[in-house]
Amino acid sequence: MERRKFIQHAGLAGILATGIAPAVRAESPAIRWRLASSFPKTLDTIYGAAETFSAKVKEMSGGKFEISVHPGGELMPPFGVVDGVQQGTVECAHTAPYYFFGKDETFAMDCAIPFGLNSRQMTAWCYDGNGFSLFREFYKNYNIVNFPMGNTGAQMGGWYRNDIKTLEDIKGLKMRIGGFGGKVLERIGGVPQNIPGGEIYQALEKGTIDATEWVGPYDDQKLGFQKVVKNYMYPAWWEGGPQLVLYVNSKAFDGLSAENKAIIQAASSYAHVEMQAKYDARNP
Amino acid sequence: MERRKFIQHAGLAGILATGIAPAVRAESPAIRWRLASSFPKTLDTIYGAAETFSAKVKEMSGGKFEISVHPGGELMPPFGVVDGVQQGTVECAHTAPYYFFGKDETFAMDCAIPFGLNSRQMTAWCYDGNGFSLFREFYKNYNIVNFPMGNTGAQMGGWYRNDIKTLEDIKGLKMRIGGFGGKVLERIGGVPQNIPGGEIYQALEKGTIDATEWVGPYDDQKLGFQKVVKNYMYPAWWEGGPQLVLYVNSKAFDGLSAENKAIIQAASSYAHVEMQAKYDARNP
Repeated sequence: MERRKFIQHAGLAGILATGIAPAVRAESPAIRWRLASSFPKTLDTIYGAAETFSAKVKEMSGGKFEISVHPGGELMPPFGVVDGVQQGTVECAHTAPYYFFGKDETFAMDCAIPFGLNSRQMTAWCYDGNGFSLFREFYKNYNIVNFPMGNTGAQMGGWYRNDIKTLEDIKGLKMRIGGFGGKVLERIGGVPQNIPGGEIYQALEKGTIDATEWVGPYDDQKLGFQKVVKNYMYPAWWEGGPQLVLYVNSKAFDGLSAENKAIIQAASSYAHVEMQAKYDARNP
Repeated sequence: MERRKFIQHAGLAGILATGIAPAVRAESPAIRWRLASSFPKTLDTIYGAAETFSAKVKEMSGGKFEISVHPGGELMPPFGVVDGVQQGTVECAHTAPYYFFGKDETFAMDCAIPFGLNSRQMTAWCYDGNGFSLFREFYKNYNIVNFPMGNTGAQMGGWYRNDIKTLEDIKGLKMRIGGFGGKVLERIGGVPQNIPGGEIYQALEKGTIDATEWVGPYDDQKLGFQKVVKNYMYPAWWEGGPQLVLYVNSKAFDGLSAENKAIIQAASSYAHVEMQAKYDARNP
């Protein structure tokens, strides 16, 4: 645009407004979003990925794009985040897709299925293989734009009130188990429960459940399961490398500039690597 | 800053200049850097990481920060990149640090050492452990600010003109081998050679070397080793997960805005994940 035309079009007021824009922006960010996590704030690994993501977006945008992070239950129930993003109640969410296999079993594929991919295979499928574009297509049904954002690596088999020695011990076992693995547990006589991370301890203490799995020693200790039950088993055949995902409301995403779209992608990527690094360092 | 003071300070010409800045910036990026890679352009995995990095920086900065990527040999020899960054001939480089263990054996630690860390362990050490801050300290001696940028995962043991059956077959074996592993080869009678990726084929064909290792099937086939020699062996005990690194001249880095520093970090992180994903998908 030529300078003369620009002046004609904008007028002096417009030029002044542009001129002082940086000073105004420094005080109030141009874009404010909310992120609903499915996880409790106590877990710096899994909840922390959303905080890392948010911090990187803020840094890269020079403070012009701020995303506040809210733990499970603060804005909506931990398992309400797909509905929340779909309806636009929040602009984005961070969750483990397999929680939603009741809506559609495809969700589980974007996280972990029994005897499925390990974390490097998941990342390879999503960054270089066909996985990512398949999920983009699937999530359109939910007004969601997805980004891989974290992986716990291989998990432990969980905490059991009583020792498990034979298949008989599974009969009637009420176990909190993540995702599609519950379907397999059911087939061999167990009673799977889909309970958010922040509510497991209480359920185990009350006796609502007989067993639970979460992630591995670093997180499990923070959630305090060892105070209630004593049998810790390995491995979790139901999740070789569960992937966490950032869900963004598609209308909110489409409204972003190309720069901010790229910033969302790279910030989620940074959080993706960092979460796995934390697990690998702390659950060696 | 108040509007009145701003006007007094800047004058109308200043305001106009600010007003039309976006139109000017769209034509010529505010920052132009050059990146020297140690790798040949034919390898979309390892050379491609620098291109991915550069593309992300451009996207996130809205075209205001452009980094041109140059294959090994174009601006300086493939193994000249540490000197290039140190002296500020280029603003940044992408390389495998173990190439430079002759300068200081510490370089090898930021890449791979015999029977050392695998790729997840390296990333964990650099993103969550003490590795990263140790390397930041070390690289100060070279005016370098470092960022992990890629990992090939476990490697193959390489191509040999003659079959290797006993330690006797190593005696006098002239082998192109990356990094510190060469020191071990030397101890058991071999003759290690430090040759850049783009020059190996010719050395093998001419008979200057008897054997070589590079990465794995996907890359090795592109470099064409199978046309010259027929014995392919496994595993490479000298590199369990060699890390590639982005080197940035510290003066150039210090001159960046906080936004652009964060963009460099996240863009290199994206490239870090993507390179490993490519290797895991293509060398399954």
